[in-house]
Amino acid sequence: MSIDAWLVLALASGVRSRALRALLDQFGDAKSIVTASSKDLRLAGLNERSVHAIANPDLPTLDLCKDWLSAPDHHAVTWADSRYPVLLSEIPDPPPLLFVWGDAETLGLPQFAIVGSRNATPGGRETARQFARHLSQGGFCITSGLALGIDAAAHRGALDTDNSTIAVFGTGLDEVYPKNHETLARDIAIKGALVSEFPPGTPVRRAQFPQRNRIISGMSVGTLVIEAGLRSGALITARLAGEQGREVFAVPGSIHNPLSKGCHQLIRSGAKLVERSDDIIEELPGILGGLAQPVQQNMALEPGSDPTAIDPEYQRLLTVMGWDPVTVDTLVNRSGLTAEEVSSMILILELEGRIDSLTGGRYLQREEGRSK
Amino acid sequence: MSIDAWLVLALASGVRSRALRALLDQFGDAKSIVTASSKDLRLAGLNERSVHAIANPDLPTLDLCKDWLSAPDHHAVTWADSRYPVLLSEIPDPPPLLFVWGDAETLGLPQFAIVGSRNATPGGRETARQFARHLSQGGFCITSGLALGIDAAAHRGALDTDNSTIAVFGTGLDEVYPKNHETLARDIAIKGALVSEFPPGTPVRRAQFPQRNRIISGMSVGTLVIEAGLRSGALITARLAGEQGREVFAVPGSIHNPLSKGCHQLIRSGAKLVERSDDIIEELPGILGGLAQPVQQNMALEPGSDPTAIDPEYQRLLTVMGWDPVTVDTLVNRSGLTAEEVSSMILILELEGRIDSLTGGRYLQREEGRSK
Repeated sequence: MSIDAWLVLALASGVRSRALRALLDQFGDAKSIVTASSKDLRLAGLNERSVHAIANPDLPTLDLCKDWLSAPDHHAVTWADSRYPVLLSEIPDPPPLLFVWGDAETLGLPQFAIVGSRNATPGGRETARQFARHLSQGGFCITSGLALGIDAAAHRGALDTDNSTIAVFGTGLDEVYPKNHETLARDIAIKGALVSEFPPGTPVRRAQFPQRNRIISGMSVGTLVIEAGLRSGALITARLAGEQGREVFAVPGSIHNPLSKGCHQLIRSGAKLVERSDDIIEELPGILGGLAQPVQQNMALEPGSDPTAIDPEYQRLLTVMGWDPVTVDTLVNRSGLTAEEVSSMILILELEGRIDSLTGGRYLQREEGRSK
Repeated sequence: MSIDAWLVLALASGVRSRALRALLDQFGDAKSIVTASSKDLRLAGLNERSVHAIANPDLPTLDLCKDWLSAPDHHAVTWADSRYPVLLSEIPDPPPLLFVWGDAETLGLPQFAIVGSRNATPGGRETARQFARHLSQGGFCITSGLALGIDAAAHRGALDTDNSTIAVFGTGLDEVYPKNHETLARDIAIKGALVSEFPPGTPVRRAQFPQRNRIISGMSVGTLVIEAGLRSGALITARLAGEQGREVFAVPGSIHNPLSKGCHQLIRSGAKLVERSDDIIEELPGILGGLAQPVQQNMALEPGSDPTAIDPEYQRLLTVMGWDPVTVDTLVNRSGLTAEEVSSMILILELEGRIDSLTGGRYLQREEGRSK
């Protein structure tokens, strides 16, 4: 069976992507390689370690893989498979085989990666979820690493919509890490896919995560970093995205937030500063084809606070109010209303949460009070 | 007297910098220009309006200027004066004469501009003051526009040190704007200088402020923008700085703060993102010569507010609070504490100045509440 041959090749340590490509060019397919004589493989330029690895496959792991693959919704997607992500095949070292749990067709969707700190602030997680939700609605499949913090929030934002999301593991797909994301992993497998290049049974090893990160960035047209300390693994993903020729985006934040420092460093190194998901959609024209419709994003629009529900008179006041703090006097001048009318409307708008009162009798329109 | 001739030329509307330079090249000095015949001025290529303006000086304004200049610490610094700022003389349209109140030697110091929103947040003002303080300690004379908000905070940060600061007026120097900055203006005149190209008696006119801004950026090696809405005048200063070939710096902030939008726009257009004053000092090597010592800056550490003194329980609440506005309910959910516990802790944190209460029962962690 062809997949067995691919498994042998994928598990053969030392057979690098480039060597494997050369072998495939020469032998035609995976099966012809694994059934070739050691002499022919040597003649084809393969080094001794690789020749040995192909001739002596790791049978217990091979059995484990085949066993895992026999379960429903478990797939192996190889270079020879039309479902193998095109963008991933373009990186310098694409894995020859991906284990997939869920809908393997998902891999063919235009993917966008959202990554960030495991120790994200609640605000950062909310930002990740909302960006993921809007980019998902905009037509992207959100890809991330199932980690605590930003990764999980990004997956959840995508799950809020009816669109799919992909989690790339740094372990075997039977080893959910972290453990308390088992339910989240299951939800993702149902509406999207879990992906790993590591065979089932592969435990957590630190070194596997940067390797995993190249798949997250490699499958994606772009990578967005939301909150990352200066040592965050998200910066590795961003660097790999850059090396793979993909767009890198970062959300800025307070200079007093240690988790903004990684994002600021990325921006200084050329990452695109983004404030809204539309900044990303506008930056990636053509990726989504007819789908690319900047979503009317309202970062903070909660169900029930439909901004169209506002009285035109009040809307006019908000319009003349603009986005800088203003006094009642200014509003009177700008609106032509009386001070009493303005004061009473201000009170209503404040109660509705559309504006904030600042010191010095000034008022400031809330961002979430408006769409755009 | 030579200064009279310069006053005539400076007050002569229609005589642009370029024409004036050409005249000086031809006639040698200011006095020779104003005593030249109209015919000679015409022959020198001066347009009719300018010829008329020089031949018919505005005598009442001239008297007002001379009267103003007779007071102690009042100066007129012209192109012919060695105290005229070298960097300002390099911009396309340097004013031929600057009215200076204070120490005119200050103009020769390496200057750095800090500008921003008039409606700055308390956190933004504190950032401005601390950047100004550190850059001042680092050897820069801080130059700004005496406006409310960021400008005033920048001047105050410089005044916190023993170094000088320069305020550039968009009015005559006898017209302090805004009025409630009269004390601040006086303090600046004592330790630095007030500067204007407008003669005494010039009232507030909107159009004069962008014109003033070119002097702020023009005298400075770089301009830092801290908090600016998308329509802030600070963005004009930043644009002029860029056109003058000077470095532009901007402090990023929360994507939910409307006053960060101008800064983010600048960063997207190529301004340098800065988190610490040392970022600026490192970016401007050689400007300060031997003086350039990056200061060990700790943006938020105030005397007496040692953040290590905070109780771990409170620290935990601040951590789940993050950097965006939250309600008590949200904090209860995130912390696992009871509403009573949260409310009481919130009160303490507010009293300690670590958080601010906003409308709608929301709370926001103060930036200066934390170090790092």
